[in-house]
Amino acid sequence: MADERTLGEAGELEALARILPLLPSGEAIVGPGDDAAVVPAPDGRFVVTTDTMLEGADFRLGWSTWHDLGWKAVATNLIDVAAMGARPTSLVVALAVPPSTRVADLEALAQGLADGVAAMAPGCGVVGGDLGTAPHAVIAVTAFGDLEGRDAVLRSGARPGDEVWVVGRLGHAGAGLARLFADAVDEDGEADADAAARLREADPRIDAQLAPVSPVAAGARLARLGATAMLDVSDGLALDAARIARASGVRITLDAAAVASAAEGAPLEAALHAGEDHALLLAVPRGTAMPAELGGHAVRRIGAVEAGDPSVQLSGSPLPPRGWDPYRRDR
Amino acid sequence: MADERTLGEAGELEALARILPLLPSGEAIVGPGDDAAVVPAPDGRFVVTTDTMLEGADFRLGWSTWHDLGWKAVATNLIDVAAMGARPTSLVVALAVPPSTRVADLEALAQGLADGVAAMAPGCGVVGGDLGTAPHAVIAVTAFGDLEGRDAVLRSGARPGDEVWVVGRLGHAGAGLARLFADAVDEDGEADADAAARLREADPRIDAQLAPVSPVAAGARLARLGATAMLDVSDGLALDAARIARASGVRITLDAAAVASAAEGAPLEAALHAGEDHALLLAVPRGTAMPAELGGHAVRRIGAVEAGDPSVQLSGSPLPPRGWDPYRRDR
Repeated sequence: MADERTLGEAGELEALARILPLLPSGEAIVGPGDDAAVVPAPDGRFVVTTDTMLEGADFRLGWSTWHDLGWKAVATNLIDVAAMGARPTSLVVALAVPPSTRVADLEALAQGLADGVAAMAPGCGVVGGDLGTAPHAVIAVTAFGDLEGRDAVLRSGARPGDEVWVVGRLGHAGAGLARLFADAVDEDGEADADAAARLREADPRIDAQLAPVSPVAAGARLARLGATAMLDVSDGLALDAARIARASGVRITLDAAAVASAAEGAPLEAALHAGEDHALLLAVPRGTAMPAELGGHAVRRIGAVEAGDPSVQLSGSPLPPRGWDPYRRDR
Repeated sequence: MADERTLGEAGELEALARILPLLPSGEAIVGPGDDAAVVPAPDGRFVVTTDTMLEGADFRLGWSTWHDLGWKAVATNLIDVAAMGARPTSLVVALAVPPSTRVADLEALAQGLADGVAAMAPGCGVVGGDLGTAPHAVIAVTAFGDLEGRDAVLRSGARPGDEVWVVGRLGHAGAGLARLFADAVDEDGEADADAAARLREADPRIDAQLAPVSPVAAGARLARLGATAMLDVSDGLALDAARIARASGVRITLDAAAVASAAEGAPLEAALHAGEDHALLLAVPRGTAMPAELGGHAVRRIGAVEAGDPSVQLSGSPLPPRGWDPYRRDR
């Protein structure tokens, strides 16, 4: 049964006692409750990535449920582990919320973490965390992975002659966010929860923004297939492809029709320049036998790697590396 | 030369280009710049802890400099690694600040991280991070350590007959914070930067609060000496000793005169019930040959472990487990 007390009423210890049993324990040697956790690193290395979600800048509680926040924290962090070609093993969650937050809201967030892990990375554990207070909610996740003896797949390994592929859809998260800003705000520009809930039933792109399913399990599979460079498309295809081009010292040529196909009905502008899709963008040697889908995510060839000045071309025209920059965003 | 532009003017990439060269690289296999970092874990396990510092709840920019914030993030996170008996190897830093923050401020924070690591854990690296925007500054650090083949030192290993020791001072951070609240606020209760700077020159307990030096290197040494239980005193001796008592199922008896000695002039009330000292509290088998100091931090015997109901006694009287609870703090 949900705990209707606020954190201020329940205190840290009782809140933790409600939350911890909801979280998957994974393979931790020492789990939550001590100064630190101890996690296996079977091949003598571990992969680590960190990301913070902030109320206001990254989410609005009028649009996202607490369950969404836990789920999205899993989807956005574990895909960075996957983009190195690693299998996610564990994560830690640092959370700061107003003391007026209900314990039931934290239970929902913990259930979102658990459900996200079960859907995208079964076996992964939540091995530690931190609870604090803040005027607006902050969720900082650090995630870990196992390379299973392989080299990490970096952004710098693409070679002329490679093919460029994408796993997952492009533009849906950005299109969903644009829809929320257009149709789920009140006269003052504040989030309108009722309008968001109605939109969500009508338009699956809202879920792509609020509770995305990222192709986490595909990462290690693509590494085994021979991926030479890989990242997740978090800031838009144009900017993220430019990152591979620059790191690898190559020209990337994308096919507009193939990109439109990967957009699956979302506007091309959103596929190219909006963020948060968390599809995997990768290069593989020409002729690699690629599956048609991986874990329910479509696998598509969208371009090629050529020798040349580091740059990205879209069907013959230069594609500017315009995308998400947290410091230049005008909202 | 310091970069006087704001983050909004410089953008994320240029800000990172200023910050990254300041950070120690440590032993990372893959450092900052990709989706994730890759870190060695020589004995097939790693220790991990996470903690968030929030403007308002945990620090005020009128009292702390940006250099202080980087330094304190190192001091408070690496000691949690040390309290497991591990050697800190690396950390990742997720940072969110207002777009109006100067790049020079972030450079100072990075230098504080670097200086803190050099002073407390030379060889440790900053292997990754994340930059985002928030209305108030948020610094989320996750730190890693190597157990060098040993078992982790948990809170649960204290046994009747053990001695209780503390490495470092108690109560100074809390006394420093009380002084700041008393003498470095204006009529509205806001931080008074000039008053704080003057206090800081006169009273070393201000530094114990704003830029603490925690006994990080002592952790692995104490594990080798045979510590049976250990934690860092982050929420006050009374509460943290009760955590060992509860986890180990033992009674801990503390000697008030010895605790007063470890307070080195700070009020006993602060030593017992205020937080953030980050001294190491531990149990060792009776008769263990302990050094007089470790890395400049005094080493003192302050009590004993006995059979009995889990509880803490101070010179014969029950010591209530009162200390820091982020959800019940009245500021």
